[in-house]
Amino acid sequence: MVGRIAGFPDNAVITEVGPRDGLQSEPAFVPTAQKIQLIQSLLDAGLRRFEITSFVSPRAVPQMQDAVEVIAAFRDRSDAHLTALVPNMRGAEAAIEAGVDAMVLFASASESHNLKNVNRTRSESFQGFAQIAKRAEGTGVALQGAIATAFGCPFEGEVALKAVVDQAKAYRDLGMDYITLGDTTGMATPMLVIQRVQALAEAVPTVDIALHFHNTRGVGLACAYAGLSQGITHYESSIGGLGGCPFVPRATGNVATEDLAYLFAESGVQTGTDLGRLIEAAQLAERIIGRELPGQIMKAGPRLQTASMDSVRTANG
Amino acid sequence: MVGRIAGFPDNAVITEVGPRDGLQSEPAFVPTAQKIQLIQSLLDAGLRRFEITSFVSPRAVPQMQDAVEVIAAFRDRSDAHLTALVPNMRGAEAAIEAGVDAMVLFASASESHNLKNVNRTRSESFQGFAQIAKRAEGTGVALQGAIATAFGCPFEGEVALKAVVDQAKAYRDLGMDYITLGDTTGMATPMLVIQRVQALAEAVPTVDIALHFHNTRGVGLACAYAGLSQGITHYESSIGGLGGCPFVPRATGNVATEDLAYLFAESGVQTGTDLGRLIEAAQLAERIIGRELPGQIMKAGPRLQTASMDSVRTANG
Repeated sequence: MVGRIAGFPDNAVITEVGPRDGLQSEPAFVPTAQKIQLIQSLLDAGLRRFEITSFVSPRAVPQMQDAVEVIAAFRDRSDAHLTALVPNMRGAEAAIEAGVDAMVLFASASESHNLKNVNRTRSESFQGFAQIAKRAEGTGVALQGAIATAFGCPFEGEVALKAVVDQAKAYRDLGMDYITLGDTTGMATPMLVIQRVQALAEAVPTVDIALHFHNTRGVGLACAYAGLSQGITHYESSIGGLGGCPFVPRATGNVATEDLAYLFAESGVQTGTDLGRLIEAAQLAERIIGRELPGQIMKAGPRLQTASMDSVRTANG
Repeated sequence: MVGRIAGFPDNAVITEVGPRDGLQSEPAFVPTAQKIQLIQSLLDAGLRRFEITSFVSPRAVPQMQDAVEVIAAFRDRSDAHLTALVPNMRGAEAAIEAGVDAMVLFASASESHNLKNVNRTRSESFQGFAQIAKRAEGTGVALQGAIATAFGCPFEGEVALKAVVDQAKAYRDLGMDYITLGDTTGMATPMLVIQRVQALAEAVPTVDIALHFHNTRGVGLACAYAGLSQGITHYESSIGGLGGCPFVPRATGNVATEDLAYLFAESGVQTGTDLGRLIEAAQLAERIIGRELPGQIMKAGPRLQTASMDSVRTANG
């Protein structure tokens, strides 16, 4: 079937966050060579934007201790856009030195989650961001902003739209032209997505808004659909759905990149990715971490992969 | 947040198919008392429409051998609408005798799946339906039609829109006013949903179209979202996501009722169900079949179930 769902954009860009957001909470260190192999397989599948690592304390997040080496492996790929999460000036210095294309600064839209996550008030976080922005001037390294708990807070419940809009304006005032709404704990719903992106289109019209959903409550792809219905073209996801939800042991975390790419392709939205190769990358990710990942399309295969009539037992409808 | 997504209906009706479609492929017989307990918990959660059993050969599907007893337990609930799947005249006789509100007749939109599923050509299936329709006259038992492989066939690949439309017209001509599009093997996509329901709104405007999705490729709720965007008010799902996909061992099957109800509630579409009680019913279903079900909201809990700040370890965004 050809065509595109009415109102959807003709292209969308997927940023792969598996190497950072997906792997950071893995208890066993993934060897650097395996991280590089995974990222290479994602490049081979057509992805070009990566949140590739973070420059955090190796004591706090030992999984990311090889940030410099991972970036070094890909910094000469001029067609790849590499970002790293940066919590403070020390991390910023290291990220600039390592050669990232952009640094991702992050704060939560809710005060208590920010305190829990980075042990700072939101105001203190933004004081730090201003210093980092100053440091980045003239380096050629761009800044991006992430708004955690943008759709709800596990401690406070609902998050006011105004808190999200104000934070986006503050990021824009620091010179950012790419801001991510993070569904940190799977509280996004399609209606909240529509409400927030409409408000941001008005408040920060020059900024690219990216949507980062978790499938914790099953509606991750429905939220992406809502984003597409509003013309949003930037999404973030994790191969295979790597990365759990720290709040709910049995629940899933990030939306799986290959599932998102499948939804987009089947809706007529081009992403430049190859579904078969994305599935291979998801299978590689499963082998690397040694357990089943929540991605669905990697288990079922593409739509038109037909079966033999002898291979199947059916049971009436 | 109050309101409703633009274009969505204000109400939708969920038909629970877990007792039939969900349980039919369970290898171990679920005792009748447990089936009744599960259905009672679904009634307590506010559901009122049930595909409650099927009248098939007990040799072919032993799980459904207690069809008469299950219906007997609920036939006096005048607020509950009970349907049973009926493959042939013998099943129809038994269903009428047992006291169902409606019989569900089913055929596939693709010839090879129909042959595999019921060992008849589609034409032979419809000859049988005509006889059953005659038998049902004057009994007060209504007929519903299900179109299996309505979004794709595991043997043939794409299914022509015309096959679906023609089958819906044939069902309508038999007097049916409720027709289900079955996503038998998880090949539905939002674009196909929109295409099919628009064509059916034109071809059989007096018929209620119901959508029955499988989450095999992760897009089940995105397909439901697409259905809502077209004003469709009837959906079928299975508590906890009971019922696998016979074609793909590791893949999930039916969309979970409680996940669907969550999406609807959060989109401003009322279903008359209580999410907390649906989650309890899903947990009961898990206990009954003795393994984890794919439903998401039953693991994560409702959106605004806040956590204690001491209970959680976060890792930077």
